[in-house]
Amino acid sequence: MNIQQIIAKKRDKNKLSKEEIDYFIENYTNGAIEDYQAAALIMAIYINGMDEEETTDLTMAMAHSGDILDLSDLRIVVDKHSTGGVGDKVTLILAPIISTLGIPVAKMSGRGLGYTGGTIDKLESIPGYKTSLSIEEFKQNVKEIGISLIGQTLNLAPADKKIYALRDSISATESIPLISSSIMSKKIASGANKIVLDVTYGSGAFMKTKVDAQKLADMMQKIGKLANRETVCILTPMEEPLGKNVGNSLEVIEAVEFLKANMQDDVKEVILELGSYMIKLAEKGDNLEENKQKMLEVIQNGKALEKFKQLVKRQGGDVSFIEDTNKFEKAKYIVPVVAEEKGTIQSLRAEEVGKLSVYLGAGRLKKEDKIDSSVGIVLEKKVGSKVEKGEILAYIHANEEEKANEAVTRLKNLYEII
Amino acid sequence: MNIQQIIAKKRDKNKLSKEEIDYFIENYTNGAIEDYQAAALIMAIYINGMDEEETTDLTMAMAHSGDILDLSDLRIVVDKHSTGGVGDKVTLILAPIISTLGIPVAKMSGRGLGYTGGTIDKLESIPGYKTSLSIEEFKQNVKEIGISLIGQTLNLAPADKKIYALRDSISATESIPLISSSIMSKKIASGANKIVLDVTYGSGAFMKTKVDAQKLADMMQKIGKLANRETVCILTPMEEPLGKNVGNSLEVIEAVEFLKANMQDDVKEVILELGSYMIKLAEKGDNLEENKQKMLEVIQNGKALEKFKQLVKRQGGDVSFIEDTNKFEKAKYIVPVVAEEKGTIQSLRAEEVGKLSVYLGAGRLKKEDKIDSSVGIVLEKKVGSKVEKGEILAYIHANEEEKANEAVTRLKNLYEII
Repeated sequence: MNIQQIIAKKRDKNKLSKEEIDYFIENYTNGAIEDYQAAALIMAIYINGMDEEETTDLTMAMAHSGDILDLSDLRIVVDKHSTGGVGDKVTLILAPIISTLGIPVAKMSGRGLGYTGGTIDKLESIPGYKTSLSIEEFKQNVKEIGISLIGQTLNLAPADKKIYALRDSISATESIPLISSSIMSKKIASGANKIVLDVTYGSGAFMKTKVDAQKLADMMQKIGKLANRETVCILTPMEEPLGKNVGNSLEVIEAVEFLKANMQDDVKEVILELGSYMIKLAEKGDNLEENKQKMLEVIQNGKALEKFKQLVKRQGGDVSFIEDTNKFEKAKYIVPVVAEEKGTIQSLRAEEVGKLSVYLGAGRLKKEDKIDSSVGIVLEKKVGSKVEKGEILAYIHANEEEKANEAVTRLKNLYEII
Repeated sequence: MNIQQIIAKKRDKNKLSKEEIDYFIENYTNGAIEDYQAAALIMAIYINGMDEEETTDLTMAMAHSGDILDLSDLRIVVDKHSTGGVGDKVTLILAPIISTLGIPVAKMSGRGLGYTGGTIDKLESIPGYKTSLSIEEFKQNVKEIGISLIGQTLNLAPADKKIYALRDSISATESIPLISSSIMSKKIASGANKIVLDVTYGSGAFMKTKVDAQKLADMMQKIGKLANRETVCILTPMEEPLGKNVGNSLEVIEAVEFLKANMQDDVKEVILELGSYMIKLAEKGDNLEENKQKMLEVIQNGKALEKFKQLVKRQGGDVSFIEDTNKFEKAKYIVPVVAEEKGTIQSLRAEEVGKLSVYLGAGRLKKEDKIDSSVGIVLEKKVGSKVEKGEILAYIHANEEEKANEAVTRLKNLYEII
């Protein structure tokens, strides 16, 4: 077997065997296969596709290309994953709620790259919070307080990391077999045996249409089934940012507000939808509507917020910031964006808002970039709102005057008001 | 414009503009585009194809990626090229014949790589023959004696060199737009304004079927037309090796024999066919049959052989080797291959014979490999011949006893006798 034969097979629209896929992943991970050979194969896969069996084989090969986190002593571990969004603080809110309901949450999250933020960067805006724990501490925390949220310290799915970076530079991102194997391999390597997936679609997501999102969801469910990991997919539109705040400490603040029952409608809908399925998969309740009620209950009675504080404290964070979010350092320049005309907001493209937030310093374009916790955007008005001329649409939080001014102009142009 | 957009366009089966193709070739040649990005684009081109206009744009961009040899002061320059074969000594024979007929021959040839030989390696088996001349000497020789055959000293079509090497390692060789642009770019860069192409097909060629060879020929003729280079294509089957001898000095010897009117039928057919078109393109005779007669005449009267000797002498070679080919150093072991049964030879695969010759040392697997001029194979019997048990099929010329024995066994197995 050699890589040229494997490339030729997929190039000619033939199905790859498990052995061929394993050979590719093993030898690409260890460097025996060159980037340009992998690029040719990835492009052939993009154009000619892969069936369910091939995609599952690719997923499992990537999952086993590095460490596999063993969480079997926690019995049922339900993981959740979103295919990406702007202003997506769902994990920060959902994890403590689910944990409060007696379901262990052992979650490794990523950092932000490109225009989407990352849960780990957001948690690190809480002074003292350690996102890098040993696997023993991580599991111990889950056993003792029912929750731990950390960064990817293990060498999970290294093949996926290499392929993911390559796909970006060769225009091979929006492919269902490639996206689904990427997501599912990471979930499987991180020890989940039940998975709830938030598949986003729209201008701010990988999948531009609901039809494509449904295809992606179907593929991931099939992989889950073949890989013996029960998987539920929720489809979520991602045209405008999720919730009100975009930025790191700004999103932590919004998450805390949510746990104080001060909930943005769109965030609430996603949280309840995903959570109700997680509870069901964890065998803690079959009725989705009842599950939603249970979630609202632990928000109303403050137990979910307590759990979040317990998590922060256990991981070394300063809980006083959660108790009083005014303690978070403010950006130097907080500048309003004002409507120049009366009308109804037609659109506010998530991707562009995300890029603007990166421009302010809230995200990174390259892995090495540092992020600025305090900057970001607070959206006072979203799609569908009626606004008067002179009304405040949003606030830019910036640490450089020039960037603040530039961002005001750019955000104003992103609000399409008719 | 960026490479990701260009890849995405071809990935989605769209036509690339001249500007996009120029951008790719320029930036791949100068190293701004990475091998893995080029590999993805090449694979997308392989799978989704290119139309005539795109292929012509690619050809011209590659031709202009390095030096362009200016032969305009020679007026009409007719070049010939073969898409590759085993035992292909056509240039050695055809060049002096054509030159004798008053048509300037200014030809840069390549070295052998893989299982096919190269004209330059063959010429270098003549002691003293210099394949590396300055462009001034090269042109001066053509002006004074009407012929010069040298190696590729100029930086001709460097983009093609990079893409050619890449194609080999990513299974993207047998593609009509990629093959035709590769060949035509080199021909255009080497200054030809009229081109005769020998398009081989069969198990020993890139194109496995005559239908595909015809498609390739059609594409190259269209490129020639669009690039304003009159182009004629001849289709030649390449199942068994061409002629009798395979190896470097062995092929020079066969060429000299041919010029002494001792002609192998298959070589004669190719020589007359290609030559008659070259004469036509050079405006020295419209009637192909008459052209063939003129060629046979200069063979019979010894003028073509005289021209070959003049060429060898002018480029520093020892003419006494041409006058008496017995002077060429013989291999240490010349071992007959004997038929083990009676019957008719059904097949003798060119590619495998070529590989065997490389094994003996006549060719190179890597660019750095040294070649051994004296080794090779002399085929006494070819496809269609009836043989008796014990009759000699061929001779192995080797410099190592072990290789001689191994080659005898392998060649015996290559003769399919029924």
